[in-house]
Amino acid sequence: MKFIRITILETVNKVGQEVLLKGWVNARRNMGKIVFLDLRDFSGIAQVVGVPSQLDEVSVEQLKQVRPEWVVEIRGIVNERGEKQKNQNIPTGSVEVLAKEIKVLALAEPLPLDLEDEKIGLDVHLDYLPLTLRAPKWRAVFKIQGEIVEAFRSFLRSKGFTEFQCPKIVGASTEGGANVFAIDYFGNRAFLAQSPQFYKQIMVGVYERVFTVGNVYRAEEHATTRHLNEYTSLDLEMGMIQDHTDIMRLETEWLRYLISHLNKTAPEELKLWNFIEPVVPETVPSFKLKEVLQLIKERTGVDHTNEPDLEPNEERWIGDYVKEKFNSDFVFVTHYPTAKRPMYTYPDEADPDYTKSFDLLFRGIEVTTGGQRVNNYEQLVNNIKKWGLNPENFKFYLEAFQFGMPQEGGLAIGLERLTAKLLGIDNVKLATLFPRDLNRIDLQISPPEYKK
Amino acid sequence: MKFIRITILETVNKVGQEVLLKGWVNARRNMGKIVFLDLRDFSGIAQVVGVPSQLDEVSVEQLKQVRPEWVVEIRGIVNERGEKQKNQNIPTGSVEVLAKEIKVLALAEPLPLDLEDEKIGLDVHLDYLPLTLRAPKWRAVFKIQGEIVEAFRSFLRSKGFTEFQCPKIVGASTEGGANVFAIDYFGNRAFLAQSPQFYKQIMVGVYERVFTVGNVYRAEEHATTRHLNEYTSLDLEMGMIQDHTDIMRLETEWLRYLISHLNKTAPEELKLWNFIEPVVPETVPSFKLKEVLQLIKERTGVDHTNEPDLEPNEERWIGDYVKEKFNSDFVFVTHYPTAKRPMYTYPDEADPDYTKSFDLLFRGIEVTTGGQRVNNYEQLVNNIKKWGLNPENFKFYLEAFQFGMPQEGGLAIGLERLTAKLLGIDNVKLATLFPRDLNRIDLQISPPEYKK
Repeated sequence: MKFIRITILETVNKVGQEVLLKGWVNARRNMGKIVFLDLRDFSGIAQVVGVPSQLDEVSVEQLKQVRPEWVVEIRGIVNERGEKQKNQNIPTGSVEVLAKEIKVLALAEPLPLDLEDEKIGLDVHLDYLPLTLRAPKWRAVFKIQGEIVEAFRSFLRSKGFTEFQCPKIVGASTEGGANVFAIDYFGNRAFLAQSPQFYKQIMVGVYERVFTVGNVYRAEEHATTRHLNEYTSLDLEMGMIQDHTDIMRLETEWLRYLISHLNKTAPEELKLWNFIEPVVPETVPSFKLKEVLQLIKERTGVDHTNEPDLEPNEERWIGDYVKEKFNSDFVFVTHYPTAKRPMYTYPDEADPDYTKSFDLLFRGIEVTTGGQRVNNYEQLVNNIKKWGLNPENFKFYLEAFQFGMPQEGGLAIGLERLTAKLLGIDNVKLATLFPRDLNRIDLQISPPEYKK
Repeated sequence: MKFIRITILETVNKVGQEVLLKGWVNARRNMGKIVFLDLRDFSGIAQVVGVPSQLDEVSVEQLKQVRPEWVVEIRGIVNERGEKQKNQNIPTGSVEVLAKEIKVLALAEPLPLDLEDEKIGLDVHLDYLPLTLRAPKWRAVFKIQGEIVEAFRSFLRSKGFTEFQCPKIVGASTEGGANVFAIDYFGNRAFLAQSPQFYKQIMVGVYERVFTVGNVYRAEEHATTRHLNEYTSLDLEMGMIQDHTDIMRLETEWLRYLISHLNKTAPEELKLWNFIEPVVPETVPSFKLKEVLQLIKERTGVDHTNEPDLEPNEERWIGDYVKEKFNSDFVFVTHYPTAKRPMYTYPDEADPDYTKSFDLLFRGIEVTTGGQRVNNYEQLVNNIKKWGLNPENFKFYLEAFQFGMPQEGGLAIGLERLTAKLLGIDNVKLATLFPRDLNRIDLQISPPEYKK
């Protein structure tokens, strides 16, 4: 009789039946007479019980030899576990599979490290990503990351936003700054986009409400636990807003949606990280930058009231402050100085030295930048000049504003930072699937000059 | 009384009520006493009726001045249209809005071209994309493109696939070939990925079933209607397959799903392009490359039976053949020569000079490449050497195969080509939001050396 493979998750509905499973050996526990295998496939993990007396000769031999990460096919009977053996933490925790036949589909070399070992150094972890990512905790991180992206899209689609694909090769008209990667483009110089900013603004003219998810690039020579040279940006932009607070309200609504989406789609994965659900009040506390700096001066004595931005320890301070005072894990900081923000940032009419821009801090770290943009063509051209840039280089971008652009704004969320912060992961590189940094593209490209 | 803006689509449920709309003037028709405005927002297009006697003085002046692409706010009464005036082709075709007040939110300069003109040259169209994309036909193309991507994801998610974000900056270990863009990466040489191939294979070891959507790069100096230097690739990869036909069956199922998804989510957009629903038989016809070339020899007398691939006119020939003979708009061509495919392509055990690979042709043009991959570590290392490459450069990739990899395979779909072919668009650049080619990054970067 030929069996059709079923998924591991399906075993819970097959008690008493003979089934065929395929998967990776996630763990092997030799209890003397009995060998337990944790078998992993795309749907979950099952406990397989190997008892030599129940197996043919070839299978007994296989049972002896199989090791973690071997790929095997198991024919066996699904049995309900004894009450004491039931595991509430996994969906297949009520059953186990008594093996009848074991076939090896692919071998694995002896593992160079223990996948359960949580003290593996960062460099070793990254050097062996094709292997280390297979550990349930890391599989959980990137499953959750995929669901964050899905939540971003499904929420915005329900609000009438249109998704678009954004190019990453851009010409001279970058946002400026030295932190761009240059490409040789058929003898011309081109660059890797630092953000989809100009394109999403152009697309507001086309669809009014748009979003795009994609890679962005920063050629920063930083080697910190917060910076990446290539990361994923969740970008949205919308027209017909009153001001930046419309965008802030939209993001607040999304955050609440996100948490509910994750609880629904990745509950076990969250459990593996002892997920502490962030508190998102219906109105997230919001302070002007000046107010934050004033508070810090009053409470700590440090006078940075003339600074144009918050330092990392100040971000943490205001994060702690709103947590204690408002029981919020999030805080908006608004009104950054006009001179320190990009030329498209909208100045507050009431106080033009400051902008209708915001950062969102999550547990003391910035995860979003957003705001209202300059939508008036003349004002934008003037700003480009004021910022020391050449309007000729922005000709394509400017067309969007020449031909009718309402008040508009948007935001960009750093996917990996948000993932890290949600799960309490210290180093953003660990929440980045294949991180690129100063010293590493997959493997190290030069001796590490910096160690955490 | 203050009105809250409603979307244009909502007007159909507001007959007799006073509403506030915001949008772009899509078209303006002056009928003497009456001026009709087609108003466009993210939800649709509404007909606004401007009658001077119904308006205050300021609004009368605005009604005179407004021109296409101006952004306006309209307060008005929703009326049911007369039976003869009803338009079945748009969702708001049963109503119109009698304007009570018109406010201009943003001006547009006089348009340099007529957005309805279908004879605009390719270069003019591309030079003015921020404007030309606003025409309903082009809005339809990229709305449909977004829905193709959504259909790819939702179908695969329902099959247990996990989405991942793939890096585009890669090291020396490219698939080979001269057609890569080089980047200066902190004094090292890096490249833009030609595909997520290696990463999706690595991820099979992690999740068994994975997909990723993202930009890929080809530094080809082609200037044809089929080639792009940056495009969007829909990639999937899955383990535990028998052979390449599992992937072909999955794609066939997706194509059927896709068509139903588009009919549901973008019916009006499809209508604008006179969409002819492609025929996807439950089993799409499949031929080995040799068989196709033999057929062509028999039917046309042209003997290319020793060629390693199909020429464009041969792709069209087999497309016409299966349409006529099997009433299928799709055909799989399998078993391309081993020597001409990448080193990871799985050779057919029965005839090792040919591979378990396939292309999918849609109405005579290739839209997918896929197949089974070499999953055995030693075989893969040998192939890398045989292909004249250095296994040291593939160390990271090879880890996935050292530590347990089942039989696996996948495919890559060119999003823009598929979009173009679905809608009958001749030039793939017109189905690419912001196309990059030899001479153009947004605007032309050098005098065009090639004209279509």
